[in-house]
Amino acid sequence: MTRVAVVGGGQLARMMAPAATAMGVTLRVLVESPEASAALAAHETVVGLPSDADAVRRLLAEPRPDVVTWEHEHIPDAVFELATQMGVPARPGRDALLFARDKIAMRGRLGELGLPMPAWRPVETEDDVEAFLAVHGGVGVLKTSRGGYDGKGVRMVRHPADADDWLAAAADGGPPLLIEQLVPYARELAIQVARRPSGEVRAWPLVESMQRDGVCSEVIAPAPRLTPAEQAEAESIGRTIAEALDVTGVLAVEMFEVDGRLVINELAMRPHNSGHWSIEGSVTSQFEQHLRAVLDWPLGDTAAIAPVTVMANVLGGSREVLESAWPEVTDPGAKVHLYGKGVRPGRKVGHVTVMGAHLDDVRKRAARVAATVRDGEQS
Amino acid sequence: MTRVAVVGGGQLARMMAPAATAMGVTLRVLVESPEASAALAAHETVVGLPSDADAVRRLLAEPRPDVVTWEHEHIPDAVFELATQMGVPARPGRDALLFARDKIAMRGRLGELGLPMPAWRPVETEDDVEAFLAVHGGVGVLKTSRGGYDGKGVRMVRHPADADDWLAAAADGGPPLLIEQLVPYARELAIQVARRPSGEVRAWPLVESMQRDGVCSEVIAPAPRLTPAEQAEAESIGRTIAEALDVTGVLAVEMFEVDGRLVINELAMRPHNSGHWSIEGSVTSQFEQHLRAVLDWPLGDTAAIAPVTVMANVLGGSREVLESAWPEVTDPGAKVHLYGKGVRPGRKVGHVTVMGAHLDDVRKRAARVAATVRDGEQS
Repeated sequence: MTRVAVVGGGQLARMMAPAATAMGVTLRVLVESPEASAALAAHETVVGLPSDADAVRRLLAEPRPDVVTWEHEHIPDAVFELATQMGVPARPGRDALLFARDKIAMRGRLGELGLPMPAWRPVETEDDVEAFLAVHGGVGVLKTSRGGYDGKGVRMVRHPADADDWLAAAADGGPPLLIEQLVPYARELAIQVARRPSGEVRAWPLVESMQRDGVCSEVIAPAPRLTPAEQAEAESIGRTIAEALDVTGVLAVEMFEVDGRLVINELAMRPHNSGHWSIEGSVTSQFEQHLRAVLDWPLGDTAAIAPVTVMANVLGGSREVLESAWPEVTDPGAKVHLYGKGVRPGRKVGHVTVMGAHLDDVRKRAARVAATVRDGEQS
Repeated sequence: MTRVAVVGGGQLARMMAPAATAMGVTLRVLVESPEASAALAAHETVVGLPSDADAVRRLLAEPRPDVVTWEHEHIPDAVFELATQMGVPARPGRDALLFARDKIAMRGRLGELGLPMPAWRPVETEDDVEAFLAVHGGVGVLKTSRGGYDGKGVRMVRHPADADDWLAAAADGGPPLLIEQLVPYARELAIQVARRPSGEVRAWPLVESMQRDGVCSEVIAPAPRLTPAEQAEAESIGRTIAEALDVTGVLAVEMFEVDGRLVINELAMRPHNSGHWSIEGSVTSQFEQHLRAVLDWPLGDTAAIAPVTVMANVLGGSREVLESAWPEVTDPGAKVHLYGKGVRPGRKVGHVTVMGAHLDDVRKRAARVAATVRDGEQS
């Protein structure tokens, strides 16, 4: 029996389970608690943290998984060491994961590869910040190199003093900082590619991602007005990164579009929110593809099925029990996904996907159903 | 939390799990053994037979399911009684299920509804058989009224003596028998409809089902050369049966096409092999729809996504461990489903779905991948 072990109990691990069930693959998941999003859906569950060696041993124990993978990048080195000891391939590997976890390492490596990025530099002092602001129009984006997500660990700075507390925290052993040029982007885009150890790479269509308060609210696939040249440029960036960094599994590259050119923002080495549309919207979903890729099985077709697919996140609102919304979901074409998570304001607790021919119509429908699920409003 | 209980541990219950996971519904399944197809995939598992009252009590115990449903029709009356006692709605209900379990009751009821069927009659003696053969061209199809599936419980008879052993078994307390006219059908078709307690009914496109040795080998959706009139006739038959028999959940009506007219063969009150194409091929799969219907939630769109979808069954062959086929699945558009069942010759152990624009091409691809999964032959 083929068995995949996954570290992490959130919705990304949860959404691997339906793909695994269909494929005949057993999914064993290390979840932080029995109430984790992935716990019910996983075929086999181990409760514990990635820092708990006993739990990780149980995750990798007989019957031995064919491979171990991750739904986030914060994997302690000890996990990789245990996997090596126990003879379980770890994909993506430690060296690749570093670049999704550490923005300074990522910027440095992508720079060596000559890939398009905002201007940036590591900063340790107010003088570093001041020097950067002086040559970049008096404004910059300060980031912690590690641990940020969904708008956390990111701050706009216009004066060196704006960075004071973070600089002090970094000097005190906190995550190092970098500052980046604020790029005047027209929109945010993302490309997802999958790569398997034997080398095959496949890319999905480039998508547009809309943010609200630093959190992704909507994804449009393919990105409106996408040209073959832009798709080719994005695929080339994705493939270059996947190959140079030896990524296996799914890689998401978040980008800005600036004056018609692509500039790399962030990397994720796992299925990503910008790829949820692919569950219904592509021949092969990112979750199925991630499993195929880490198992080194032939990759599936990544073509879009409909002219336009829109994914709208359900961000925790006034409704505590999301399933109570189901009787109000009267749009027969809306695909509602609920993650079985406790609701907190702004937390990603589900998403809605709608496919169709006309962007405006499809966007409106997805947003309306997401609002209904969140608040019970038939807006 | 919304929870659905299911009786039966085969692939039909297994394939409800991915739909339930996406919808945020907890699926609790009564499986006959821990190795059952549905056991790993179910969110909560109770091991036991439907005839085991203690096991059924555990299935229906707190946290109490919102509804209990079935993946087959062989549900003891005691299960319905327990469900009533414990306050769990049972859908489809006992009265409806009878007509999918007992062919004499079904033929009788459909006759009252004036629906098109082959000529038929119950038979208890050789004289009964002889009288029927005399007026129907000397040939008939003898069936056990209960317990038949996949070609079992069906026999062609040309002489009353051909029925001897079954008549004796029936007289000895075995299932009663009926005989049906052998209809000169051009092809076998099936329509699936879903109905929810508050009355909404939706039908999928009529499909063609191809049999080999009495077992479904392929399904083509929509049926080739399907006319709007034929679709309307099939939908009307499905809706009439669902409403008259108070079916809730998914109903499959298997039919023959005879001289351009539809004639009803069999009923199934659950997701059915003829609807597996809908997992990828329709906006709403039969498994998601069944859960929505038994929960009395609004039904989903049943439109086909591609011009043609072909589902090919993987019938147990020479390959014992089906997942070992995955590295050979080089058709990137083929969707491979494995049921995690032990392999026996002819047993349904998985299926392959391919979508596309050209029937011949799509059929060839589906058949080729199904053969690869079964035998390892890249035919």
